[in-house]
Amino acid sequence: MTVPASAAPFVLGFDADDTLWHNETYFAAAHAKFHALLAGYHDPASVERALYATELRNLPLYGYGAKGFTLSAIETAIELTAGRVSPAELRELLALGREILSHPVELLDAVPATLAALHAAGHRMILITKGDLLHQERKIADSGLAERFLAAEVVSEKDPETYARLLRRHGVEPARFLMVGNSLRSDIAPVLNLGGLAAHIPYHLTWEHERLAEPPSAPGRFFTLSSIRELPALIARLSAPAA
Amino acid sequence: MTVPASAAPFVLGFDADDTLWHNETYFAAAHAKFHALLAGYHDPASVERALYATELRNLPLYGYGAKGFTLSAIETAIELTAGRVSPAELRELLALGREILSHPVELLDAVPATLAALHAAGHRMILITKGDLLHQERKIADSGLAERFLAAEVVSEKDPETYARLLRRHGVEPARFLMVGNSLRSDIAPVLNLGGLAAHIPYHLTWEHERLAEPPSAPGRFFTLSSIRELPALIARLSAPAA
Repeated sequence: MTVPASAAPFVLGFDADDTLWHNETYFAAAHAKFHALLAGYHDPASVERALYATELRNLPLYGYGAKGFTLSAIETAIELTAGRVSPAELRELLALGREILSHPVELLDAVPATLAALHAAGHRMILITKGDLLHQERKIADSGLAERFLAAEVVSEKDPETYARLLRRHGVEPARFLMVGNSLRSDIAPVLNLGGLAAHIPYHLTWEHERLAEPPSAPGRFFTLSSIRELPALIARLSAPAA
Repeated sequence: MTVPASAAPFVLGFDADDTLWHNETYFAAAHAKFHALLAGYHDPASVERALYATELRNLPLYGYGAKGFTLSAIETAIELTAGRVSPAELRELLALGREILSHPVELLDAVPATLAALHAAGHRMILITKGDLLHQERKIADSGLAERFLAAEVVSEKDPETYARLLRRHGVEPARFLMVGNSLRSDIAPVLNLGGLAAHIPYHLTWEHERLAEPPSAPGRFFTLSSIRELPALIARLSAPAA
């Protein structure tokens, strides 16, 4: 007797920033300070638009993370002030970047208990996060959660190719992979695209770049949860033999 | 009959920057431009000392790579000019960083042919490089060498812990691992420390941080080559049964 495919256990992928711990709140605070710094020159909406345009332009070279953000903020400040930005203000921008890189890891509600329960239940779990390599590694180490995961993968982009490569590396069939994350663009859409499953847990803040114009449609494979607490029940339901 | 341990094939680790392709030359050019930029304020040696001090101070937060270099250069320029550095000069620093991140990959002499020969001879090879994740991935892709390697590992630090983790991941005994690289500090010493073998191929430029005060001593496990061309012969000699 062979075990039907549907009874094979799921492998769970977890995004990190804004799924396991707070991140966008630190960037939002840095943006607010950036707006305040340039308040004498431009209104916050124009400052934000210019910063985002600079970040998008630099993304292919800088990639994601706080170092690229800081460089783009410096570039935007010089542009928007026609060079009148002061050395003290530039020092503040450098400090903003360092604050993001050095803030303590603040876990989201119910994360340790939920991961412990899933781990105890024998689920194989992989952490998949993008951004500055060293910063992500430090956060993973500081989170105290590293031992829950069979691997922690820091990637430069979360697209279907990246997920396909990681699934091959870990010998996981897409149909048995469930990705959990807060970004429709990075955590959900590319996994659904590969034939995997995805649980979206929205965070109260989303960087513009991580938004999607169209919500994904993948009946039976796409789920929205309001908290990571709801994840074990979802997995139990998905794992139950069809009636 | 069992195969004696000494007949097991070596797994080869390769550093990338300044081992497979030029890198430090681009940083050296950026440093020279940085000295020129601040020539009106300080002599090149003082500028270099201040930049290196800033880079070392920021290393635990920024890690290695061109983005951290650019941020440290901006910080140093503001410091050394007591804030008189001009917006045009800061823009030049941002451009320096982008130049490093976008230069074409220039392979070192004999690299493609040597890797092709080692690959054809059935050697398992792993690329192990540190620096900005996205930048390293782009260079690996652009090098045309990716398919020679069973894995390309971008790490945030090359210390014994990192090598031990990678060797475990790939199921390699340290005594059967030979690392090839230009940095005594990052490529050679930590691997010898673990009981592995190491082939040092000096590059004509070495960043101060990659130097070692004491050359490593590990008779029979540490080799110095003047070119990657000499590597196949070294491996053949190491693999030959003892007389």
